Amino acid sequence: MLTGNGSMYMNDAISRSGLKYFCARNEAAAPMMAEAYARVKQSLGAVCVTSGPGSTNAIPGLAEAWVDAAPIMVLSGQVQRDHTTLNAGLKDLRSFGTQEINVIPIVEPLTKYAVMVNEPESIRYHLEKAYYLANEGRPGPVWLDIPMDIQYADIDPETLDGFTPDDPLRFEPAQTGKYVDQIIDLMKQARRPLVIAGNGIRQGNAQDDLMKFLDGSGIPVIFSRLGQDLMPFSHPLNMGQAGIKGSKYCTAIMKQADLVITFGCRLSVQLVGHKMDAFSDDAKVVMVDLLRDELDKPGVPISHPMHADVKEVLTGLNQHSNIHEHPNWNEWAESCAELKTSNPMVTPEYLRDPIDLYYFMSRLDAISDEHHLFVTDAGSNYYIGGQVLHFEYGQREITSGTFAAMGLSIPLAIGSAIAAPNSQILAVTGDGSLELNVQELKTMSHYGLNIKLFVINNGGYVSMRNWQDGFFEGRRIEGEEATGSGTLNLEKVAAAFDVEFTRIEGWKNVDDALAQVLSTDHPEFVEVVCNPEQKIVEPMADLSFDVSRA
Amino acid sequence: MLTGNGSMYMNDAISRSGLKYFCARNEAAAPMMAEAYARVKQSLGAVCVTSGPGSTNAIPGLAEAWVDAAPIMVLSGQVQRDHTTLNAGLKDLRSFGTQEINVIPIVEPLTKYAVMVNEPESIRYHLEKAYYLANEGRPGPVWLDIPMDIQYADIDPETLDGFTPDDPLRFEPAQTGKYVDQIIDLMKQARRPLVIAGNGIRQGNAQDDLMKFLDGSGIPVIFSRLGQDLMPFSHPLNMGQAGIKGSKYCTAIMKQADLVITFGCRLSVQLVGHKMDAFSDDAKVVMVDLLRDELDKPGVPISHPMHADVKEVLTGLNQHSNIHEHPNWNEWAESCAELKTSNPMVTPEYLRDPIDLYYFMSRLDAISDEHHLFVTDAGSNYYIGGQVLHFEYGQREITSGTFAAMGLSIPLAIGSAIAAPNSQILAVTGDGSLELNVQELKTMSHYGLNIKLFVINNGGYVSMRNWQDGFFEGRRIEGEEATGSGTLNLEKVAAAFDVEFTRIEGWKNVDDALAQVLSTDHPEFVEVVCNPEQKIVEPMADLSFDVSRA
Repeated sequence: MLTGNGSMYMNDAISRSGLKYFCARNEAAAPMMAEAYARVKQSLGAVCVTSGPGSTNAIPGLAEAWVDAAPIMVLSGQVQRDHTTLNAGLKDLRSFGTQEINVIPIVEPLTKYAVMVNEPESIRYHLEKAYYLANEGRPGPVWLDIPMDIQYADIDPETLDGFTPDDPLRFEPAQTGKYVDQIIDLMKQARRPLVIAGNGIRQGNAQDDLMKFLDGSGIPVIFSRLGQDLMPFSHPLNMGQAGIKGSKYCTAIMKQADLVITFGCRLSVQLVGHKMDAFSDDAKVVMVDLLRDELDKPGVPISHPMHADVKEVLTGLNQHSNIHEHPNWNEWAESCAELKTSNPMVTPEYLRDPIDLYYFMSRLDAISDEHHLFVTDAGSNYYIGGQVLHFEYGQREITSGTFAAMGLSIPLAIGSAIAAPNSQILAVTGDGSLELNVQELKTMSHYGLNIKLFVINNGGYVSMRNWQDGFFEGRRIEGEEATGSGTLNLEKVAAAFDVEFTRIEGWKNVDDALAQVLSTDHPEFVEVVCNPEQKIVEPMADLSFDVSRA
Repeated sequence: MLTGNGSMYMNDAISRSGLKYFCARNEAAAPMMAEAYARVKQSLGAVCVTSGPGSTNAIPGLAEAWVDAAPIMVLSGQVQRDHTTLNAGLKDLRSFGTQEINVIPIVEPLTKYAVMVNEPESIRYHLEKAYYLANEGRPGPVWLDIPMDIQYADIDPETLDGFTPDDPLRFEPAQTGKYVDQIIDLMKQARRPLVIAGNGIRQGNAQDDLMKFLDGSGIPVIFSRLGQDLMPFSHPLNMGQAGIKGSKYCTAIMKQADLVITFGCRLSVQLVGHKMDAFSDDAKVVMVDLLRDELDKPGVPISHPMHADVKEVLTGLNQHSNIHEHPNWNEWAESCAELKTSNPMVTPEYLRDPIDLYYFMSRLDAISDEHHLFVTDAGSNYYIGGQVLHFEYGQREITSGTFAAMGLSIPLAIGSAIAAPNSQILAVTGDGSLELNVQELKTMSHYGLNIKLFVINNGGYVSMRNWQDGFFEGRRIEGEEATGSGTLNLEKVAAAFDVEFTRIEGWKNVDDALAQVLSTDHPEFVEVVCNPEQKIVEPMADLSFDVSRA
C-alpha cells in the first residue's frame, strides 16, 4: 500500500484491523510485490492505493500481474460518488473531483473484474465476486474502486448479499475422457514423444499428476520459463528450459519430436521461436489448455487442440487402463539425456575474469538449498538465470516471465520475502534494471527483509549493446552509457537507502563471498563485477545438435 | 526515451536522425518530462518507449499529460504485426509475441488518438492526424504503436497520403457574438463582478486578450492553479489563486461576487470547494469553455454556459462598442485589493525556526527573476507554492495541476530545463515525494541541467499526518514514518546519483544560501530543513473575511 487522501478511510481501517501491511515507495511497485506474494503463497495478494495518480501509478505492476496471471486485488480510493466522472457520465471530462480519474476503463483490459462500488450494500458482493474471479480459471488481477462516501458508509455486514458463482463445473467429463483417449492413442504411435509443461501446471494444482505421468511414461519434458521450477533439473527426463534463450540442445529435441504434448503452456513466441517453426512439420502437437483463445491463436499448428483442465486430463491419463501400452522410449530419452550431459551451459572456459555471469549464477544455484527462493530481473541475468538455475531442492523462481520487464527484482523480492518469511531471497538484478524501482531498496531495508540482492555490474544495458552490435553496426544510444557502472556508484546507491553493501570481484572469490553473504539474514546489496562483454547463448540460432540416434 | 528491443529500429533512427533525445531511467517519467517540455515551449513533446512493459510503464506519466492537457506524442515499439494480440483478434490472449501487450485499449481513455499502425503506407496519415489532434482544441496526449516490421519497412515518403482536418471552424461566429452581447448585458447590471481564469487562456492563446479585458473593465480576477502564472500578483486587479488552498480571502471575494465570468477554467472541486458552494446563490455565473461536457457537469450552477473559444469571446468583448457602458467598480475592486494587502500569506510569525515553508518559498519567489521557472511537487510545497509564488517577472510554474501527484518535480524539472535551456529551474519537492522518481536524479546530473532541486525535509508525508490528526485521532501508518528524514539521509541520496549537495538550516540563513545556490548553473540538490509540524492555510475553512464594504 501507499497512503493518500483519497483512500484515507481504507488506510485507517487497514492500520486498525490488525492486517499486516507493507508500505511501498511508489504505487507502481505495490502490485509487483503483491504478485510475488500471490505466486509464492499461491493465494491472493492485495494492494491499496489512493485515487487519481495513486491508481494510474499502479498500472505498471498491474500489467505484470495480468500477463503473468497472478491473483491480486487492487482496492483504490476514489472521491465521493457525486464528484466522479463515472457518475457524471460525460465522456469529455478528464477529471472532476480532487485527484480524480475514472480508472475503471483504463484497467479493464488488465483485469478479470473492475468496478467502482456505487452502493455501500453491494460491497460484500463485489469483494466476493472479485476474490472468486481473481483465483478462478487462469488467475489474474481484479480491481475495486471505492469512493470516499462508500469507505465511511455504515453497513450491517449480516444483511449484505454475497456472490455465488453459478457454474463450478467448467468442462464436461465425457469430453475430457475423449481427449485422454486421444492422447493415449497418439502415444501408442509415437517414437519420439516430448512433453512441454508451463505455469498452468502449478495454477491447475497438477504438479504431482505431471510427475506421475512423466515417471510412468518415461517421456522427456521441457519447461517454459515460469514452469521450469516445477522439477529438479537433475531428473533424467528433465531437459530444462525451452526456447530462444533455453537449454543449448532444446531446439534439436523439439525439432526431432514426433509427438509434442503441452500441458498448461501457451507456446509463446519466446518458446517456439520467432518463426514459430520449433516443431517438425510432421509432428503431432497436442495442446491442453484452459483457454480457448490460446488454442486458437495463429502460430504453431496445433494438430490436437484440447480445451480442458490440465489436472483432469493428467488424472485421466494416469488412471487410464492403457497407459503403459506404448513403445519403449528409453533410447530416445537416453539420447536426449546424453545431449543434456554433453552440453552443459557452464563450461571451464567460463572460469575467468572479469566474472562471467554464467559462472556466477551457476555458483549461486549450487550454493543454494531448500530455504532459498530465486528472483531474477530483465536482461542478461534473466536469460542466464533461465539457463543455469537447477531447482534441485524445490526452490521457486519468481520473475517477470512474460514481459521480462526491467526493474522487477526488488519489488518481487520484497513480496517473496513477505510471503516466505523463513526463506532467504536470492535476487539478481542488473545495474540497468536496478534504477527502475531503486526507491524500493528503502522498503527492503526498512522492513529488514532477508533479501540478498546481487547487482550485476556490467556497464549498463548488456542486452541493448548486444542488439546494437548485431543489428546496427554497434551504434550506441548515448544516455544508456550513463546508466552503467562507470557513472553510477553502486556502493553509494546502497548507502543512500541504508542497505549493507558487499562487492564481489574475481571468479575465484565467488564461493567464499557467497558463503559469507548467505550466512546472515539481513538485507544486503551485493555488487558483482562482471564482464561488460557478456554474451548470451541463443540455442535457436544454432541447429547443429544431433539427435539422429533416436 | 528509454531503449528496448521492441523499439530498436526507432531507437536507432532517432540516434541517427540528429534529433535531440534524452534518456529517462524509467518509462513512467518520460511522458512527465515531455509534458513539461510541451507546456514550457507550447509545442509537442515526444516520447519513445518499447513494447510491453515499456509501454505500460509509461502510463503514469501519460495520465498526468492527459489531465493537465499537455500535447505529447508517444511512439511505442511493438512486435511484428503477426505476433500482436490486436491482429490475432482473440480477447483472452493476454500476451502473444515477445514482451507484447495490446496497449491501445489501455491508453485509449487517456489519449485523444491511439492506434497501432498496421500498414507502412499509413504512417504519414497517422503521424499527421495524431499531431493535429494533440494540439487541437483542448490539447492532450496521442499514442502510436509501431510494430517492428513497420519500423523497418521501406516507404517512399513522397507517395504517402497525409491527413487533412475537415473542419477548421469550430464555433459559429454568430453564436459567439450572441455570447459576447450577453456578457456585456450582464456586466451592465453587475455591482461586484469577478473574472476567474484558467489554463484554457494559455491553451487558447488568449493571454493578451484577457489582460486587455481586465485592464479595460477593471474587474478583479482570480486564477486557477495552472492559470496563476498568467499575471503578476502585484497587479492591483489580481487576487491570486482561488480554491481550497488558495489566497486567504479568495473565499470571501468569490462568495460576494454577483457576476462571475470564467474563461478557460473548468471550475474544479479544488477551486469551488467540496460542497461546490463557492458562489452566492444569487450570483450570475458565466462559464466560457471549449468543451460541452465541462459546461454540463454537475456541481456549481452555471447560469450562462457558453460553449465557445475563449480568444474569440475575449476579442469580441474587447472590440464591443458598449464595453465601457457598465457601472464603476472601483470601490469593489479597491475593497478586494485591500483584503489582499491586509492579509498577506507570509507574516512576521513565520520568521522562526525550524524554517517555515511559507517563509522559505516566499524567499525563493522573492529572489527569483525572469530567467527562472518554478516546479512544485505534491504535498505542502504544492499548496504553499500556489499561495506564495508571485510571478512578478512572468515566470512560469510547471506542476501537476489536476492530480497534485507525488514525485513529479524531478521529471517536470528535467523537461522544463530541456525546453528552456537559458532558464534556471527552481524545483521544489518533499522528502516523501522525492522517492517516487528518485532514479531521475541521475538523468538530471548526467545531462548537467540547470536545476536547483529544493528538497523539503519535514519528516515525510506532512499532508498525510495532517489528515491523520484531523480525521483519525492522530493514528499513523507505520511505513510512512520511514520515508522521512529520520531514516533517509538526503545527502547520501544526492551522492548516489552524483548531484552536488547543499543543506539550508535556519531561517536567517535562507537568503544568503539561496543567493549562493542560484549563482551557479549546475544541477544541485538542496536539502531545506523545515518544520515537521507545518500547517497549511485553508481559506475555504475560514469564512470570516469581510467584503461588506463593496
